[in-house]
Amino acid sequence: MSEMKIKAARKAVEYVKDGMILGLGTGSTTKFAVEEIGKLVSNGYDLVGIPTSIETEKQARSLNIPLTELECVDRIDLTIDGADEVDPNFNLIKGLGGALLREKIVAYYSVNEIIIVDESKIVNQLGTRVSLPVEVTQFSHKKTKESIEKLGCVAQLRGSESPFITDNGNMIYDCKFEGISDPYDLALKLNSIPGVVENGLFLDLASHVVIGTKNETKVLEKKAY
Amino acid sequence: MSEMKIKAARKAVEYVKDGMILGLGTGSTTKFAVEEIGKLVSNGYDLVGIPTSIETEKQARSLNIPLTELECVDRIDLTIDGADEVDPNFNLIKGLGGALLREKIVAYYSVNEIIIVDESKIVNQLGTRVSLPVEVTQFSHKKTKESIEKLGCVAQLRGSESPFITDNGNMIYDCKFEGISDPYDLALKLNSIPGVVENGLFLDLASHVVIGTKNETKVLEKKAY
Repeated sequence: MSEMKIKAARKAVEYVKDGMILGLGTGSTTKFAVEEIGKLVSNGYDLVGIPTSIETEKQARSLNIPLTELECVDRIDLTIDGADEVDPNFNLIKGLGGALLREKIVAYYSVNEIIIVDESKIVNQLGTRVSLPVEVTQFSHKKTKESIEKLGCVAQLRGSESPFITDNGNMIYDCKFEGISDPYDLALKLNSIPGVVENGLFLDLASHVVIGTKNETKVLEKKAY
Repeated sequence: MSEMKIKAARKAVEYVKDGMILGLGTGSTTKFAVEEIGKLVSNGYDLVGIPTSIETEKQARSLNIPLTELECVDRIDLTIDGADEVDPNFNLIKGLGGALLREKIVAYYSVNEIIIVDESKIVNQLGTRVSLPVEVTQFSHKKTKESIEKLGCVAQLRGSESPFITDNGNMIYDCKFEGISDPYDLALKLNSIPGVVENGLFLDLASHVVIGTKNETKVLEKKAY
């Protein structure tokens, strides 16, 4: 399993060029990519990273990868991150790790976003395998939940004993749909509910998908349109 | 000026019936409406209020208006609130007071929303007179600002010496458009920017507008469609 992840991570890091500003994603596979980026820095590459989580920030610091803030750069050249589901249009569900807002902001400002996944994450339709995380304000979150459920899902507050609170002081509902037939429409409807801060649908943000399988590592590149 | 506001507030409060659950707005005119509601409670009306701000909560408590939380009710029968601009379609700009998210959530769950304004707030097109407040997460707010400005405005962080922080821990950008030709489209575009929590466009939320002028108080009622 680890070996497959390492191979996929290496494949993704082939896209890193000297001088790039990099978004550093979060997760068990992305961790290996960050390690590879650390090696490039050791080898003299002039790279700057923007981490999407405190976990990744710590790892990057330990590898001496220079870090900066999104506010301080014009754009991010390339972000490498994971995903919980990937559909045939390169649309994603992300956010099981709880950092969806920061990950989405970093993805939004990235020229290229490479997603590393194992083949179990590839789906024909989003929302079939995992729940969609939706970040909501604490104020009136139960009413917000009801409005979200009217869109055709069962929403479960994250955190079994006490609610999970995001970096931004919000809560997360994990929303189980029986498949999401039109993710663009759903994203607009979710964003139009007052109290919804962000949702885990990453639409038109991924440029490449690296898929690790037992036997090989496949790279899919989204055609420009 | 006060007398005009009192007259308009009284007109709005004529819509309050015994047994109603009321959303209590915020602002200098709405204050008079809350006072009138207090009188109804003194006279034996069974009313319950849901305040949209701490200011209004204090006033309502001082008037012995029973209060509850939005989470505890099925719906709000009627909300009385103010607005910064009202267009001919009863669409509004709100949020100069800084409580736009809570006001929007309360409006969203209200069967009827009566807006009290003086005639200076009536505009042919939204965004011509005031800036549109947009609530954003602190994380990466300068990048969010840039994305907002691409929609055709100049965005100014609220708070001259230190940034104004909302009840939800967010910041506000006041966005000066030269008129907003399609508020529905703008609302969707704003909500699709990661980092934008909410915006001050209140679309299809107002059911009545009470306009106080020097000589009279006019009530406009939106036709059901």
